[in-house]
Amino acid sequence: MDGMCKGLHEACGVFGIYAPGRDVARVSFFALYALQHRGQESAGIATSDGHLAYLHKGMGLVAQVFNEENMRPLQGHMAIAHNRYSTTGTVSLRNAQPYLIETLHGPLGIAHNGNLTNVNKLRLKLLQRGVGLVSGSDSEVITQMLAFPQQSNSWEVRIAAFMAEAEGAYALTILSKEAVFGVRDPWGLRPLVLGEFPNGGWALASESCALSTIGAKLVREIEPGEIVRLDAAGVTSTQGQPLRQRALCIFEYVYFARPDSILEGQAVHLVRQRLGEELAREAPVEADIVIGVPDSSTPAAIGLANALDIPFTEGLTKNRYIGRTFIQPDDRLRQMGVALKFNALDANLAGKRVIMVDDSIVRGNTAGPLVRLLRQAGAKEVHVRVSSPPVRHSCFMGVDMATQEELIAHRLDVEGIRQHIGADSLHYLSYEGMIRAVNAGAPRPMTYCTACFSGRYPVPLDEAWLQQRKSRKESFETLRG
Amino acid sequence: MDGMCKGLHEACGVFGIYAPGRDVARVSFFALYALQHRGQESAGIATSDGHLAYLHKGMGLVAQVFNEENMRPLQGHMAIAHNRYSTTGTVSLRNAQPYLIETLHGPLGIAHNGNLTNVNKLRLKLLQRGVGLVSGSDSEVITQMLAFPQQSNSWEVRIAAFMAEAEGAYALTILSKEAVFGVRDPWGLRPLVLGEFPNGGWALASESCALSTIGAKLVREIEPGEIVRLDAAGVTSTQGQPLRQRALCIFEYVYFARPDSILEGQAVHLVRQRLGEELAREAPVEADIVIGVPDSSTPAAIGLANALDIPFTEGLTKNRYIGRTFIQPDDRLRQMGVALKFNALDANLAGKRVIMVDDSIVRGNTAGPLVRLLRQAGAKEVHVRVSSPPVRHSCFMGVDMATQEELIAHRLDVEGIRQHIGADSLHYLSYEGMIRAVNAGAPRPMTYCTACFSGRYPVPLDEAWLQQRKSRKESFETLRG
Amino acid sequence: MDGMCKGLHEACGVFGIYAPGRDVARVSFFALYALQHRGQESAGIATSDGHLAYLHKGMGLVAQVFNEENMRPLQGHMAIAHNRYSTTGTVSLRNAQPYLIETLHGPLGIAHNGNLTNVNKLRLKLLQRGVGLVSGSDSEVITQMLAFPQQSNSWEVRIAAFMAEAEGAYALTILSKEAVFGVRDPWGLRPLVLGEFPNGGWALASESCALSTIGAKLVREIEPGEIVRLDAAGVTSTQGQPLRQRALCIFEYVYFARPDSILEGQAVHLVRQRLGEELAREAPVEADIVIGVPDSSTPAAIGLANALDIPFTEGLTKNRYIGRTFIQPDDRLRQMGVALKFNALDANLAGKRVIMVDDSIVRGNTAGPLVRLLRQAGAKEVHVRVSSPPVRHSCFMGVDMATQEELIAHRLDVEGIRQHIGADSLHYLSYEGMIRAVNAGAPRPMTYCTACFSGRYPVPLDEAWLQQRKSRKESFETLRG
Amino acid sequence: MDGMCKGLHEACGVFGIYAPGRDVARVSFFALYALQHRGQESAGIATSDGHLAYLHKGMGLVAQVFNEENMRPLQGHMAIAHNRYSTTGTVSLRNAQPYLIETLHGPLGIAHNGNLTNVNKLRLKLLQRGVGLVSGSDSEVITQMLAFPQQSNSWEVRIAAFMAEAEGAYALTILSKEAVFGVRDPWGLRPLVLGEFPNGGWALASESCALSTIGAKLVREIEPGEIVRLDAAGVTSTQGQPLRQRALCIFEYVYFARPDSILEGQAVHLVRQRLGEELAREAPVEADIVIGVPDSSTPAAIGLANALDIPFTEGLTKNRYIGRTFIQPDDRLRQMGVALKFNALDANLAGKRVIMVDDSIVRGNTAGPLVRLLRQAGAKEVHVRVSSPPVRHSCFMGVDMATQEELIAHRLDVEGIRQHIGADSLHYLSYEGMIRAVNAGAPRPMTYCTACFSGRYPVPLDEAWLQQRKSRKESFETLRG
Repeated sequence: MDGMCKGLHEACGVFGIYAPGRDVARVSFFALYALQHRGQESAGIATSDGHLAYLHKGMGLVAQVFNEENMRPLQGHMAIAHNRYSTTGTVSLRNAQPYLIETLHGPLGIAHNGNLTNVNKLRLKLLQRGVGLVSGSDSEVITQMLAFPQQSNSWEVRIAAFMAEAEGAYALTILSKEAVFGVRDPWGLRPLVLGEFPNGGWALASESCALSTIGAKLVREIEPGEIVRLDAAGVTSTQGQPLRQRALCIFEYVYFARPDSILEGQAVHLVRQRLGEELAREAPVEADIVIGVPDSSTPAAIGLANALDIPFTEGLTKNRYIGRTFIQPDDRLRQMGVALKFNALDANLAGKRVIMVDDSIVRGNTAGPLVRLLRQAGAKEVHVRVSSPPVRHSCFMGVDMATQEELIAHRLDVEGIRQHIGADSLHYLSYEGMIRAVNAGAPRPMTYCTACFSGRYPVPLDEAWLQQRKSRKESFETLRG
Repeated sequence: MDGMCKGLHEACGVFGIYAPGRDVARVSFFALYALQHRGQESAGIATSDGHLAYLHKGMGLVAQVFNEENMRPLQGHMAIAHNRYSTTGTVSLRNAQPYLIETLHGPLGIAHNGNLTNVNKLRLKLLQRGVGLVSGSDSEVITQMLAFPQQSNSWEVRIAAFMAEAEGAYALTILSKEAVFGVRDPWGLRPLVLGEFPNGGWALASESCALSTIGAKLVREIEPGEIVRLDAAGVTSTQGQPLRQRALCIFEYVYFARPDSILEGQAVHLVRQRLGEELAREAPVEADIVIGVPDSSTPAAIGLANALDIPFTEGLTKNRYIGRTFIQPDDRLRQMGVALKFNALDANLAGKRVIMVDDSIVRGNTAGPLVRLLRQAGAKEVHVRVSSPPVRHSCFMGVDMATQEELIAHRLDVEGIRQHIGADSLHYLSYEGMIRAVNAGAPRPMTYCTACFSGRYPVPLDEAWLQQRKSRKESFETLRG
Repeated sequence: MDGMCKGLHEACGVFGIYAPGRDVARVSFFALYALQHRGQESAGIATSDGHLAYLHKGMGLVAQVFNEENMRPLQGHMAIAHNRYSTTGTVSLRNAQPYLIETLHGPLGIAHNGNLTNVNKLRLKLLQRGVGLVSGSDSEVITQMLAFPQQSNSWEVRIAAFMAEAEGAYALTILSKEAVFGVRDPWGLRPLVLGEFPNGGWALASESCALSTIGAKLVREIEPGEIVRLDAAGVTSTQGQPLRQRALCIFEYVYFARPDSILEGQAVHLVRQRLGEELAREAPVEADIVIGVPDSSTPAAIGLANALDIPFTEGLTKNRYIGRTFIQPDDRLRQMGVALKFNALDANLAGKRVIMVDDSIVRGNTAGPLVRLLRQAGAKEVHVRVSSPPVRHSCFMGVDMATQEELIAHRLDVEGIRQHIGADSLHYLSYEGMIRAVNAGAPRPMTYCTACFSGRYPVPLDEAWLQQRKSRKESFETLRG
Repeated sequence: MDGMCKGLHEACGVFGIYAPGRDVARVSFFALYALQHRGQESAGIATSDGHLAYLHKGMGLVAQVFNEENMRPLQGHMAIAHNRYSTTGTVSLRNAQPYLIETLHGPLGIAHNGNLTNVNKLRLKLLQRGVGLVSGSDSEVITQMLAFPQQSNSWEVRIAAFMAEAEGAYALTILSKEAVFGVRDPWGLRPLVLGEFPNGGWALASESCALSTIGAKLVREIEPGEIVRLDAAGVTSTQGQPLRQRALCIFEYVYFARPDSILEGQAVHLVRQRLGEELAREAPVEADIVIGVPDSSTPAAIGLANALDIPFTEGLTKNRYIGRTFIQPDDRLRQMGVALKFNALDANLAGKRVIMVDDSIVRGNTAGPLVRLLRQAGAKEVHVRVSSPPVRHSCFMGVDMATQEELIAHRLDVEGIRQHIGADSLHYLSYEGMIRAVNAGAPRPMTYCTACFSGRYPVPLDEAWLQQRKSRKESFETLRG
């Protein structure tokens, strides 16, 4: 299922490249294209030739924002790039990234995935220092903090000074005139990986799928708290902040990451199959076929089908041409609801007992219509299996999830949800089952941010900021336009 | 695989609706949205309130062309609509459909799927009659032919007169101020179905998936040579031309139609599974996993996997955000070729003997890179199975296939193609196997247009037109802009 | 005063060129630029290289419609071009000109200035012949009539056949693959002149100012009823219809034409000065200064000032950056009315007796605010002098004048108007005075269309068409979009 | 003549309004419309309701940038607005004004006319303080300087602190959440006036013509070094810096200001007439007619004509539809040069001895073609009279004049220029004549910035900045896009 249906918007995709002799803007374009699933609202690329910095960004999909003409001025041998899904701030070009400024140390660009949880404190500090702020984005705050002179004149020192003050989730790519940097918060909440080109040059990306797309080899993950510098000397690592508790967002495994990405040494696809297998073990049921909610639930459905030895097949088709449409269905069409995006394959469903696997249920407004769709197509029984636990808590680490009130599992227990969606049976994967499935293939045991399931937030939360985020108001910012 | 990769562009999707009391423009929008796979170049809707006719059309996807503002003037209780993929004529708004004119009998709109094979003769006849032509589209020719007065003043008589002269493929929806009409050529080359709304009103669509999306029930197919009239009196049928030889495009089953559509009483999805089963029978091979080239080949892959009792799994992921991009990869990126659209799921492939099912090979420039991609991911063996015969002949019935020279099976035999794509083995489904699979579920035996496989064209071809089509030149038309 | 204030929209500017060796599209661009005052709604250029024809047209000013990129495809050695102000038909690209079609005789393009008064009859005839019509424009009707085969296969024969049927005003430039043609209706209602380039090549234009701008020399006017053909053989003249009664629109002298244009051998500027001199003779008044309503009334004001020996000076400035604005003043601003476009030069006006010369009063809604403005600036007396008679009748010959009810002189007598605008005295130039001033410099006595002043229309008017024009409804046309 | 021809671009027009109960955005729109001659590159309006601030700005003319939809969010009872002509920084939206930021003291917006001559020093200081800068504009520098906390928390204190550091020309309107401010540099280099609405409310504008347009009454000029605060308490004045030497740009009288504006108590129109009278005295010549180069030279021409008792008439018409066109004339057209914008009125010129008055000659590339145009039209003699002295020095106070090398009077003496333009005689008004004409109507003797004529700059110039301006390079800024 896609994020727009779910009420789940991944924050962003970031990218960085240092590769003399390559058309770094073009490579960045295709990397953004591979990371498009992480943000469809705006896209941007900033490059530098070591003297000047060049920027183009715009609203829309990568393929809509860039053309040969606006790519031409993006000269240089290094670049950062960004796909955005608004988490804070209004949806406008003013908040699009990369964010690029002039500093005493030359141009400075930032691409940011995550959410600073103490951003209000940081903004206030900047304002008190007499810095005026143009936008409501965390990224501007980060650039202005990085612009502040420190005793030692090095970007690593300035980045570390920022990390000492910042709290929350950040995976950053940073462009200066000397180097490209990759930075990850001390919890490692949002992913960031390092890749190498066969003939020289380095890249940073939110997910390894971007590396495969541009022909770079995955080298390793950036460590929590680490600063990597890419320049003519190769890759230099500094620990900007000590590792706290590893807390990669477990939802990356459940839903966000592309199945062909490698996280912490594991193929996301395989983890999802194992989530399905765990689910099979926890809540087996007799049935004729297993189907997944396309496209993201297919691996879990295949895993569950194999574990139960029930044939996997396709039961729902999804319109491939989903895009933002400004046309709203009228009442009659609205009653048909989800059918605008999904159609049932009646021939596969008629008279069958069906297990429908979904990777997660967030607001709960698609599962019901899908169950109805299957029944209309003749399914005798519909058993819903969800390959993750109930989502009961909002995310404040960079995912624009629904507000707590909108989360169906915050309002209803499992039996209540079953009745609401009209399934014959409903089972969510247990928390332990999820952890087991994720850890089963890990090179070493890991810990995760599971806040949306467990309510345990790894990062201390600023109460005022929390209220503001919960009410989705922008209480601080006073500019519009 | 998508059409853009394949060099296969379905001509168009058409729609028509007569439904007093409904917002017919809005319903048309969602029908076009469901038919988007049949044409992504331009979209248009024409409506009528019985007095005036209203039109909006534009370049791009349905969701890009329409917004609430430009939908508002589209008043009335009947409409026709169109998604276009250019087959003849330049790619410009001038050729977008519906085509709407004023006639002695009031406004007349046409949405056309197909290709008139004697269009040059028809154009010449119009020009000799003193009719000037604005565009290079068949649709303008059809409207001007329909505008010509006949002895009896009825649209059926004028439509039948057009059918008597026209040769080639046409599935039309026609808008007049009295009624909406659906027309299909005497061979039934392009599909057209009739649907009914539960609370009154009728619809026509290229595929039944559009009916499901808008909440209408599939009633039946329009017969070859039939004219149906939708108006206050319900549905009236006239035989405009006697049925010649039934010749529905068999490629609709192989690739074009959406899997959830019903053609000739058969679920397309099931036909595709049977194509996979036939393929399994014809060329079994030992392997560890079966994968399909996403998304269109999945049903055939599942059919083949079940028949061979080899697990079906996902081996390739496809970027969901494919759209027209104006950015071309540079040479280094170009060498990576197809990898911009597909990534391999290494974990599922490493060390495995893989059967990769594709529904068809047209130009043959994706199969090779995909095989390479699988091998890089560690596949030990790659056996390619194609669920249709070799495509050796161009289509002149409304599909913008590659020119004959571009068809790989026109230049190479199967062994040559195998070597070209680097597969361990390659098998195309036999012609007989394909016919068997398609007919197996048909209520009665059918005949098809199989010209692209067999070279047997059901319709006599105008030689000059053929040359012109082959060279893709527009020899007749002298206007640009 | 500009036309938008006045409620006077000149129909169109047309241009044509045959000039091998020149960039005819570029020359056409600058000719349209010089004719911009005749129409600001849409602009277009069609060219031909003798085989194909090329077209670009769009909404807006010439400088907005064209850029180097869309000019590039406009190849060839001949062209026609058009600036449009909507007179009939809705304001949309569908009605923009040139209108270009494919005919049996090759491409055919039309640029038209005027109004066919029997267009309904002609449309009906075309529809009865079975020709469908796409737009509501006269120009499409003309192209389709010209496409009709005649006994002798020559454009002159086809053009003459059109002229035999057409009634009303038309100055046409026509593009075929052999030649460019200029045609003027048998009354010569709208102007059309012929020019020659010093180094070879010919041009046609609505006004001679376009010739000066592109470096061509004015040769002569196209005669009423004449067809001129520009091709490799030079200029060939045919009389398509006998001259009826010469009836050039006298408003061209009063207001429409650019002051630097030459009409019938007379400098428009000089005619306007003489209109002012006549006005001085008819209604002298004691005053301290003479001012004109900028910019079009300046010559008449200078003429009157010289005749009365009262100093001419500037009393009003007009905002140079007038363009279409979508922002409407609110009520408070609306009360200030015309002041948004004009400001008074207080220093020149304070304590003075002022004669304000305007070239015409149509709807009468600017004269009042201007008089008020002058008084606020301290003018002791304001005497309004209008250098043409009262406009009491609508134009049906190609000028989008206000409807009859909107004409202030249709509702009020001169004294009523004087009170309405608050002037100390008001005098309109007499009909005889106007004729005398216009004829004074003419090489031979001429007759004019003075219908808007006299109510005597030179062309018989179709009653139904008249009603339709009067009500500004589009009763015939049934298409929108 | 217009600025684009001249190579003279006025920096900007600024506006401010405090008027509870009025639609301040709408009023701002019409004020910008009246100030459009001061900048056509971008336009913007920022409003505030006392809590939030709202902004819309865009590239192009005021009427192109604003529509009802983007005006709607511009709520509040106070506003600032800006028309821009680029003087420094690249032509891009990033440099458009007003510039709006969030500060510790709430939102802060700036609209700026002028040039800070020590901007590099100020930028460096900001960067050293750790403030990152987004654009290359002076305005961002000013906002960030104003954001810096001072001992006393008042905007007046912060503004005065800025004034203590800033050097060069600035006329500012400033928006905070409490009030609107108007500020003028201690020399009063750029104009700024205060107006009052009849029913309450105050406005600030670069020129009084904007006040007339929006129905406000001119109260007085803002004094050099003065800060005025507009809020609920009315108008409060503070002296931010002591007056240095009054140095209003004398070119405002010569060319920039609209003729209906009042500067220092004088009608600009009258000053220009006196410049013409002085010129008549200095260099009388026998002639038949006096003409002005439209439109800006008309008052001087009338003044000269009256002084010499030679009839003033129109000799040149200028195309009213001048706008930015992207189409360049080809070589043949280029030879005709200025004729694309001007046509001669032959009838007034033939056989005449002509005095052509121009208000100034900057680069000297239009005067020559105009003289040629007059001669082609039959003028027997052409005497050129310029109503200001030779422009020999670049402006660094906010006018984007040509570089020194481009100034014809920097390269040639008067006789050389006469030969260059081909006039029978040429006379520039003397420096003393100009001063006399300007001071003649002044309530008290004034001093002016006459640097472009005299080379005496009132403000000390930073040498590095000067070099940078001269070479038109942006040496400091390192960002693009």
